[in-house]
Amino acid sequence: MSFPQSDLVQRGISDEFYQALEAAVGAAHVVVDPKAMEPRLIEDRGLYRGSALALVRPGTTEEVAKVVRVCRAAAVPIVPQGGNTGLVGGGVPQDAVVLVTDRLNRIRAVDPLNSTMTVEAGCILSNIQQAANDIDRLFPLSLASEGSCQIGGNLSTNAGGTAVLRYGNMRELVLGLEVVLPDGEILNDLNGLRKNNTGYDLRNLFIGAEGTLGIITAAVLKLYSKPVLRATALVACEGPQAALALYDRLRSRNADSLSTFEYIERIALQMVLDHTPGCADPMAQEHPAYVLVELTSSDPEADLDTRLEAALAAAFEVEEILDAVIGASESQRDALWALRENLSEAQKFAGASIKHDVAVPVSRVAEFLMTASSACRAHVPAVRICPFGHFGDGNIHFNLSRPLDMSDADFLEEYPAFNRIVHDIVAELGGSISAEHGIGLVKRQELRRYKDPVALRVMEQIKTVLDPEGLMNPGKVL
Amino acid sequence: MSFPQSDLVQRGISDEFYQALEAAVGAAHVVVDPKAMEPRLIEDRGLYRGSALALVRPGTTEEVAKVVRVCRAAAVPIVPQGGNTGLVGGGVPQDAVVLVTDRLNRIRAVDPLNSTMTVEAGCILSNIQQAANDIDRLFPLSLASEGSCQIGGNLSTNAGGTAVLRYGNMRELVLGLEVVLPDGEILNDLNGLRKNNTGYDLRNLFIGAEGTLGIITAAVLKLYSKPVLRATALVACEGPQAALALYDRLRSRNADSLSTFEYIERIALQMVLDHTPGCADPMAQEHPAYVLVELTSSDPEADLDTRLEAALAAAFEVEEILDAVIGASESQRDALWALRENLSEAQKFAGASIKHDVAVPVSRVAEFLMTASSACRAHVPAVRICPFGHFGDGNIHFNLSRPLDMSDADFLEEYPAFNRIVHDIVAELGGSISAEHGIGLVKRQELRRYKDPVALRVMEQIKTVLDPEGLMNPGKVL
Repeated sequence: MSFPQSDLVQRGISDEFYQALEAAVGAAHVVVDPKAMEPRLIEDRGLYRGSALALVRPGTTEEVAKVVRVCRAAAVPIVPQGGNTGLVGGGVPQDAVVLVTDRLNRIRAVDPLNSTMTVEAGCILSNIQQAANDIDRLFPLSLASEGSCQIGGNLSTNAGGTAVLRYGNMRELVLGLEVVLPDGEILNDLNGLRKNNTGYDLRNLFIGAEGTLGIITAAVLKLYSKPVLRATALVACEGPQAALALYDRLRSRNADSLSTFEYIERIALQMVLDHTPGCADPMAQEHPAYVLVELTSSDPEADLDTRLEAALAAAFEVEEILDAVIGASESQRDALWALRENLSEAQKFAGASIKHDVAVPVSRVAEFLMTASSACRAHVPAVRICPFGHFGDGNIHFNLSRPLDMSDADFLEEYPAFNRIVHDIVAELGGSISAEHGIGLVKRQELRRYKDPVALRVMEQIKTVLDPEGLMNPGKVL
Repeated sequence: MSFPQSDLVQRGISDEFYQALEAAVGAAHVVVDPKAMEPRLIEDRGLYRGSALALVRPGTTEEVAKVVRVCRAAAVPIVPQGGNTGLVGGGVPQDAVVLVTDRLNRIRAVDPLNSTMTVEAGCILSNIQQAANDIDRLFPLSLASEGSCQIGGNLSTNAGGTAVLRYGNMRELVLGLEVVLPDGEILNDLNGLRKNNTGYDLRNLFIGAEGTLGIITAAVLKLYSKPVLRATALVACEGPQAALALYDRLRSRNADSLSTFEYIERIALQMVLDHTPGCADPMAQEHPAYVLVELTSSDPEADLDTRLEAALAAAFEVEEILDAVIGASESQRDALWALRENLSEAQKFAGASIKHDVAVPVSRVAEFLMTASSACRAHVPAVRICPFGHFGDGNIHFNLSRPLDMSDADFLEEYPAFNRIVHDIVAELGGSISAEHGIGLVKRQELRRYKDPVALRVMEQIKTVLDPEGLMNPGKVL
């Protein structure tokens, strides 16, 4: 095999380095061909393009540790990558070795009675969901990229998605971790315990650290009882204030089964109706806003439809909602879900968009939506505001599509200005500028602006003590 | 005021130090009277006796920060104390300032629509429960000392208790924190957000750190929908294997409402019956083991009794259980709970006891109980083994009472030997030597023996970078 030369030799990276990588993982698993590396240099939306010395594909945790030690000895940065589906450029390398986790794809253990599963970082999320389903359990994490994203990436970004309302973020779905540290040692805490108070909680330090503190190689995941019933409704309402009242109503009585509360404004729904074949408005009239509501239960006698109907009837009675359609069959329920699931795709037809993945306290979602919408319209009057998302988590994807009569390029020039407008309002409301996507490259400057400086300093202290050479996914988060 | 002198002056701690403390919190809140300090020098069971330079009772976070800076300048250790109800000596001072949090007792904010409450560290747990109840919400943390323990202690020890099965440990009940760091700076992360991926999760680093990384001064707590119905049963069974089968049955169909699954062996129940006035066996016959089961719901129409009856009838049908009593009224349900709640107290009548707060995977609880019981009987044949606890969390209080014909002193000499026997089995089964009580002073040596050395090293690195002088609750955990 011939290795890239040129300036690498000048930097002291020579054949010996590549040979050491090959010795660590086998020659077949060190990739330097530019064409083969290409898909690993860019992120999903093409916002960033990086460069790599090699892709390395270890097959075991011990091999990951060897790669880390080889890179460390040569002072070469390491960027771990799973499915490379992240949305903030967290996996983009710069003159680094890309450590691809796809060969770490074993389900090491399944323990139905403990409701746990021990998986390696490279397992694809949908495969994990399926393996849980095979033993009559649920692994609840669910997100758009589940067919290709890997659990290692889900862990490193503390992934969110549509099941957070009921089951929590990725962080809440993990009991134990195995991590290769920046010095190549292996932290072994693959415990399957619900209770364990033996020292500092290192697990949560690595979860959500976006690969900057070490490489997660395996995890013990929590499984849940499999729901066997669901009741699904699309509910129309006047706007966020009404949605909040409905949320409070459902939560107070149906807390045991409430699993979904997703908000969609009409303009966003209209984009789905306009651009997604097979999607139709289930209501006769147009309404300002909608909520997709779902109750689920593992009790086959739970009679969720009756409960949902009763709750919605009571809400209708007091004019909290304008209309509602309850799915009467699995296919009708799937059709209601399709209206939510196709939002991101449909918005692509509307031209350039400027997105904000933000969260505020649930009590302030309505205030956020109204204030931020006004402020954005004051900046660009014809901007099309398409907010939707996880209302019950306080997490809104506050997406702006360009005005019909504006070019993509002109609109995208307003990216920083819109960021400032929206993030300032989020900060004012005690919110987060990154609810579920993380910081990566994209939001690094914004983090410096909005994060408590003392918290930033502690983050830097931890980074420095665990990764003094700064070789683990450098330039991300901090 | 006259300050303790003697060897303190030699150590450079003089009037100026005490005056600086008084300047920080007001003279009335610096206590040096030995009699007044006494209750703060010992822990609940009198296993350890410490010494203090002063008790200091700051009234605000800013005052906590000032105290920390004064102590740091004088190189005086600080031991934070809440209700001083811990079980592992985590609050015992040694030549330290005891920072008592009881004046930090304000509920700063209540947000019913966000289901959150912002509380200061010195709030007593039962007051927080009541404040949640007042707005029709539940703060689920519940444990024996709830009438006097403070939330700051609950946070610092990641408290467990009887509601973990449904709601998780303390860790899972927190959204944001305010912490005074070892250098006297204030980390402000009092967010009330369900989703927030903006950098490392510092919150979980301070939770469960037992005051060794800083002093938690306030927290944003998650509240839940208030249950309005409960169904409670005492179920008799052959032993842990049958209990596990019952647990699996209830979890698979009644996951939405299952809130309690507490295991009690006959010998432990008998102690309650023998020593607790008003407690009676609700069954005609004696049985080897029992489980206290409770379903709860916030839906007034949930009909939990019917569901519980159906599940227990099915279990009886297949001889999984031997008998069951369902509480028919609130007072009957309370009476069933009293059998569980009086276990620790009743055991005191049986003489000296050697306790183990351990956890294993739920699937291995039966194996643990059988193996550990045999091994303990092999060591001291007449030892009375009284295991009980949070079966559904895998957390058993594996308590040993002395043989009837053995003195307390002779039995307690076997403490280290029994620890080794039980903890070795726990480790073999992938368990934890401290499920919910923490490490403190009591389990520090055990931690060194059983914890992954790499994890220990990372813990030490974090301790060193955040508290280089080692002044925060020294000698605890690490």
